[in-house]
Amino acid sequence: MLNQRTDLDRLFHALADPARRAIVERLSRGPAPVSELARPLPMSLPSVMQHLSVLEAAGLVRSLKVGRVRTCAIEPQALSQAEQWINARRIEWEDRLDRLGVYLEEMKREEESGDAGG
Amino acid sequence: MLNQRTDLDRLFHALADPARRAIVERLSRGPAPVSELARPLPMSLPSVMQHLSVLEAAGLVRSLKVGRVRTCAIEPQALSQAEQWINARRIEWEDRLDRLGVYLEEMKREEESGDAGG
Repeated sequence: MLNQRTDLDRLFHALADPARRAIVERLSRGPAPVSELARPLPMSLPSVMQHLSVLEAAGLVRSLKVGRVRTCAIEPQALSQAEQWINARRIEWEDRLDRLGVYLEEMKREEESGDAGG
Repeated sequence: MLNQRTDLDRLFHALADPARRAIVERLSRGPAPVSELARPLPMSLPSVMQHLSVLEAAGLVRSLKVGRVRTCAIEPQALSQAEQWINARRIEWEDRLDRLGVYLEEMKREEESGDAGG
């Protein structure tokens, strides 16, 4: 549990930056060299490399250097982990709404039968 | 777009902390007073209040003070926004895999018809 928490800390932290999300958005459409990832970003190459290392530490991106070209790819399992955590919250919240709905229906029926009886 | 980005920055930042996720986990099961949220957390009440203010700023939690009791509730739309962003990435990634699958199938068929011909 503690381990998973540390993973989620790193994951959500990595996603909390617009440049890092832009990189993840680009890589979701396919692998890309660092130069291509850097092109649309309003920052220096060392800054892009720093963002990439945060994404790699979070397990969201992997990269491979061949010669002078470093190519990056998305690691979809990491994104799933974040999605699953949010999804689990939504399920709990919807379950609660369903139970609340059933309760309100029961209240309404009781009130109606009370009205009919009185 | 810039606005939405700022929202997502705050959202993912808010979720990047285990105490804040514990609060969101608890509130997904229903509203709770601050005292109940604080009980399982290994920190002072002022620290809990600080985490709550990060969650409120991100739009994930709303709170209402009646007398001396502050009660908190989840704001599910904010969680949906984070979920939608991740979901959109997964769809792009899966589309790419589908296209890659079709391409590989075509390559295989061409190779097989080439073998049959030769």
